Amino acid sequence: MNSYGKIFKITTFGESHGTAVGVVIDGCPAGLAIDLDFIQAELDRRRPGQSKITTQRQEGDKVEVLAGIFEGKSQGMPITLVVFNEDQRSKDYSHIADKFRPSHADYTYQAKYGTRDYRGGGRSSARETLARVAAGAVAKQFLDTIGIKVTAYVSQVGDLALDTDYTKYDFSQIEANILRCPDATMAEKMIERIDETRKNRDTIGGVVTCVVQGTPVGLGEPVFDKLHAELGKAMLGINAVKGFEYGSGFEGVKMYGSQHNDLFYSEDGKIRTKTNHSGGIQGGISNGEDIYFRVAFKPVATIMQDQESVNEEGEAVTVSGKGRHDPCVVPRAVPIVEAMAALVMADFFLRNK
Amino acid sequence: MNSYGKIFKITTFGESHGTAVGVVIDGCPAGLAIDLDFIQAELDRRRPGQSKITTQRQEGDKVEVLAGIFEGKSQGMPITLVVFNEDQRSKDYSHIADKFRPSHADYTYQAKYGTRDYRGGGRSSARETLARVAAGAVAKQFLDTIGIKVTAYVSQVGDLALDTDYTKYDFSQIEANILRCPDATMAEKMIERIDETRKNRDTIGGVVTCVVQGTPVGLGEPVFDKLHAELGKAMLGINAVKGFEYGSGFEGVKMYGSQHNDLFYSEDGKIRTKTNHSGGIQGGISNGEDIYFRVAFKPVATIMQDQESVNEEGEAVTVSGKGRHDPCVVPRAVPIVEAMAALVMADFFLRNK
Amino acid sequence: MNSYGKIFKITTFGESHGTAVGVVIDGCPAGLAIDLDFIQAELDRRRPGQSKITTQRQEGDKVEVLAGIFEGKSQGMPITLVVFNEDQRSKDYSHIADKFRPSHADYTYQAKYGTRDYRGGGRSSARETLARVAAGAVAKQFLDTIGIKVTAYVSQVGDLALDTDYTKYDFSQIEANILRCPDATMAEKMIERIDETRKNRDTIGGVVTCVVQGTPVGLGEPVFDKLHAELGKAMLGINAVKGFEYGSGFEGVKMYGSQHNDLFYSEDGKIRTKTNHSGGIQGGISNGEDIYFRVAFKPVATIMQDQESVNEEGEAVTVSGKGRHDPCVVPRAVPIVEAMAALVMADFFLRNK
Amino acid sequence: MNSYGKIFKITTFGESHGTAVGVVIDGCPAGLAIDLDFIQAELDRRRPGQSKITTQRQEGDKVEVLAGIFEGKSQGMPITLVVFNEDQRSKDYSHIADKFRPSHADYTYQAKYGTRDYRGGGRSSARETLARVAAGAVAKQFLDTIGIKVTAYVSQVGDLALDTDYTKYDFSQIEANILRCPDATMAEKMIERIDETRKNRDTIGGVVTCVVQGTPVGLGEPVFDKLHAELGKAMLGINAVKGFEYGSGFEGVKMYGSQHNDLFYSEDGKIRTKTNHSGGIQGGISNGEDIYFRVAFKPVATIMQDQESVNEEGEAVTVSGKGRHDPCVVPRAVPIVEAMAALVMADFFLRNK
Repeated sequence: MNSYGKIFKITTFGESHGTAVGVVIDGCPAGLAIDLDFIQAELDRRRPGQSKITTQRQEGDKVEVLAGIFEGKSQGMPITLVVFNEDQRSKDYSHIADKFRPSHADYTYQAKYGTRDYRGGGRSSARETLARVAAGAVAKQFLDTIGIKVTAYVSQVGDLALDTDYTKYDFSQIEANILRCPDATMAEKMIERIDETRKNRDTIGGVVTCVVQGTPVGLGEPVFDKLHAELGKAMLGINAVKGFEYGSGFEGVKMYGSQHNDLFYSEDGKIRTKTNHSGGIQGGISNGEDIYFRVAFKPVATIMQDQESVNEEGEAVTVSGKGRHDPCVVPRAVPIVEAMAALVMADFFLRNK
Repeated sequence: MNSYGKIFKITTFGESHGTAVGVVIDGCPAGLAIDLDFIQAELDRRRPGQSKITTQRQEGDKVEVLAGIFEGKSQGMPITLVVFNEDQRSKDYSHIADKFRPSHADYTYQAKYGTRDYRGGGRSSARETLARVAAGAVAKQFLDTIGIKVTAYVSQVGDLALDTDYTKYDFSQIEANILRCPDATMAEKMIERIDETRKNRDTIGGVVTCVVQGTPVGLGEPVFDKLHAELGKAMLGINAVKGFEYGSGFEGVKMYGSQHNDLFYSEDGKIRTKTNHSGGIQGGISNGEDIYFRVAFKPVATIMQDQESVNEEGEAVTVSGKGRHDPCVVPRAVPIVEAMAALVMADFFLRNK
Repeated sequence: MNSYGKIFKITTFGESHGTAVGVVIDGCPAGLAIDLDFIQAELDRRRPGQSKITTQRQEGDKVEVLAGIFEGKSQGMPITLVVFNEDQRSKDYSHIADKFRPSHADYTYQAKYGTRDYRGGGRSSARETLARVAAGAVAKQFLDTIGIKVTAYVSQVGDLALDTDYTKYDFSQIEANILRCPDATMAEKMIERIDETRKNRDTIGGVVTCVVQGTPVGLGEPVFDKLHAELGKAMLGINAVKGFEYGSGFEGVKMYGSQHNDLFYSEDGKIRTKTNHSGGIQGGISNGEDIYFRVAFKPVATIMQDQESVNEEGEAVTVSGKGRHDPCVVPRAVPIVEAMAALVMADFFLRNK
Repeated sequence: MNSYGKIFKITTFGESHGTAVGVVIDGCPAGLAIDLDFIQAELDRRRPGQSKITTQRQEGDKVEVLAGIFEGKSQGMPITLVVFNEDQRSKDYSHIADKFRPSHADYTYQAKYGTRDYRGGGRSSARETLARVAAGAVAKQFLDTIGIKVTAYVSQVGDLALDTDYTKYDFSQIEANILRCPDATMAEKMIERIDETRKNRDTIGGVVTCVVQGTPVGLGEPVFDKLHAELGKAMLGINAVKGFEYGSGFEGVKMYGSQHNDLFYSEDGKIRTKTNHSGGIQGGISNGEDIYFRVAFKPVATIMQDQESVNEEGEAVTVSGKGRHDPCVVPRAVPIVEAMAALVMADFFLRNK
């Protein structure tokens, strides 16, 4: 339920306005040097208030270690990381306590559980993803030791889209702008679009592209646990995601087999493919080429506008749009996509070694 | 590895040219009346050789029960269904035994396992999906008892696409043509396109749309096991699938939150949404509206053309295109998509009841 | 539910009087040479009718391969083994169809599932264990390749008990008698006791001792999945088992720590213990010494005597004792204990490698 | 690895001398009122330093809630409970850092992981069980709502043993003495025995008996996940446990089937058994009678005597016996046995409802 992975397995916990948000990482190999500063840096990439195009809410999000690290290294025991919530005072939530915000989880949680922590969305809040980013930062450090590198960037905002061919972009430029888009010119346009949207008290969707490099041949399983099926599940589990495609994706539908097939050749004793419509995965198993995929994010549901809705009794009410909001989720989603991809890759590496 | 589901759990087994292909269904509730004719009918929808636009290979695919059904009913014990392969004689496979067919699983299986059953792709063959269809037919019979209905249809072949709004189509027309497309005019064009492709000894991609109706509120889980994340994994586990989107999907990226949000209202004491960009799922949990999603299939890799490749030693070889092939996978994929969707829904119903 | 293991994972299916009983083995490493004759030989050790002290029911129990073995080797794909039941004709079961046999699973199955296959106990029949023995025979062949050896023997029948110190016995003598007891003198007495019991139309309990040799250091996990906890679960899952103890067991309770502690010493660069009250497992993890444990079997519930009981309506009825029965389960339980132990060891080896 | 349960699932974390020890409880039903004082009271029953026959180490063990409880109730979200360790200062552990204490987990952990937290045993310390007791206290509160009651008591210390028939004892007297033994006279003798043992700087073993009352018919699963198999695994997962038996147990081996079979009768429309050698479980499934079992604990390995051993290099060393120790684990094991039994029962109730 709140766990992900089979060998490198994480369990997240915590509500948006509860005491803490955290994660237990079970199955991290013993003896891995863990750099806490790197974990903090990853959390900072996800942190609210980091730029003018993210929510202006300010949260420090300082990570603390409760268990599992001794003398700077993992011990093969569960690693527990937490971030204590700074702002736990009881605000007045009475204006939303019994109202269902449109396209949030308020209604489905209430119907399913008969109760819910209505403060800031409780557990359904995207704040939960900081636990994934912390765990992903550990997974990334493990992947470093085996040469696997995960890189994500913003490739679309609204209808402003980069070319789907990731090889055209210089990954070193991704963090050069607040959007995390490797094309500076497009980044500027996209930032402008988000800023406009913010001024309109609205939100807009986007796409994050992710590339996994250095994967050895043989990760993934036949049938149900195909590598891309797990990557897909991991991405679709991120708040606001509506779609996932890898390799040629939905565009590949339009191709003929004779165009789409990736022909094998041999290079320096290594078997390679001339093209990579397969997205680095064949029969569910990595073939050593780059793995790449795209993740579609809807416009986030919290907007600064009044909206019609109903309350728990089914009576018509107005949900008011106050406070601070994220006009576009993708800049902060980049580290989350990377974290989940890193967790999937670490897990499969350990399952299949 | 070869299992899917947590409560309603299936394990498939069998190779394309082995003795049998089959499935163990563990967790089917006791007392369910099982109609074997329905299971056979579903297998017939997936069967090769059913029309001019599918592979001309002829296989009977007769289902047999090995265990779990007594006096016509499930007993709460594992139900085992098998189809014995008719054609197990040792053909001469020496021409492909050590060659890697482009965009098949030959290379990755060999690299991962150090061995593989090269006869017809062995376990990586789409023949394995008949086990899923058989299990899905049991799941459908269970869903019938709780009012959940799963319907899929072909919505795109190459660049010929139906409108993405499924409400425009009459589901009763889906099985009226060999393509399983509810729009007769488009079906004709699409069939023509496939037929052309077949004559060119080539293959072409397509999209299957699936709609789940009658889902109660509350199926799915927060965080990682969101209902759409499991549906996505289940679809991405089907051979040749490259993408999955639900609700507004990749197009939803272009929308603003003020357009995308589904406003709640009350109707006859039931809470509904005015629009359904959410695709029937909010916060990972069903909200009672129709669930709908699209699944992208690449052109299948088996084409009737000679292709360059390498053998196990990495030497350049030609893979010849002989025999019979499926010019477009989507007509036969419709029952597979339905089966996997039915399995996910049955599993979540039992997990969340 | 009907599955066991995490990596080397089995799923059994089939009812006593259904079409077949079988097993899917998922996770067996690829490239393992599988000797079907050995599997058959193991089944023959469990087979009814093998001697005067087992049930006289005659069943051939011929194993067949449905999937997963190609050119004599495992392929990393699910291996499916079945035994078709010879005697499937509809006997008249009306005399027991609605009666609950004492200390059988009749009542609990009926209450839990609202239905049951009453023919010979259906799924609750010990006939299911042949699937475990078949799977265990594959596990044993895998363990052979890594030097782990599993040996079980009968160590007690009624109050006739061998010394608990297994090192006093010569394992090569176990199969020298029909009881599978390494002490010929005691075996004779025990066989006599069983024969008497059979003549009294009664049954009697017994103990099976099992020794695992050649285990590398490091198998097992801290906390919940301790190696002995899994061995215990595996043994307690065998029909008629009432108790499990390893190492010093219940007798160890009476010892002082200063007697019980196993002192370490070094021998040829290997760390050993002088005594082995720990039973080869410390902190849940194998330490390289012999693993040994004892499994208590109750007298089997099927006796050839009339017994008072109730039917489904709760009315008083007599259950008559007719047919053939097993006067003491332990001779046939020896290969089942070995099989489950082999499955646990194979699974942990693959989990922890 | 560090998780237990399928639906009501716990994950524990933390080392003896790390920052905190804690537990994530995933799958606790929503809306359960959680009494933190009861959780604290259960922890106090396990706490060191509670009487003259337990270790004199003093630890407060104050439980804190990090997540999952809102307005005093569970929310269907993961409940996280932690106890911060009071004494985290860096003592000098150099005298044991590279030595393997006899019959501890030092050697196996070091061999398995290549590293270990040697401070007080790190994760292998029985201190980890406080996390289980905290989780068990939540499970007990859930079981209260469905009428299931779990009671454990000390039934043996060394060779001083109560009658195995639990019905002879008055459970209200269990907490009347520091040993948690319902027979005051025997308790006195046992306490004296423990005190003697303590003075001899030694330890002694014991048995805890546990009784589960109020279980509905139908909990447990056929084949591998029999109710008693899970109970057995849960008990064998507790530190220092060497054996488990339920119902007639090892003594039942000596009985004949005609004595051992529990005859059914009908009482007030309910089906009951006249005797209960089955221990409330038939075919792996609860039959509504009391479930009872016995758990054997070895003498704990930490003794206050010098012992021969080896260090990481395999060199002969002396491990000195200093500090404080638990002369007999059973008084503090009572709440741990209850906690694990409660967790198993809660999990099966939710799996099988």
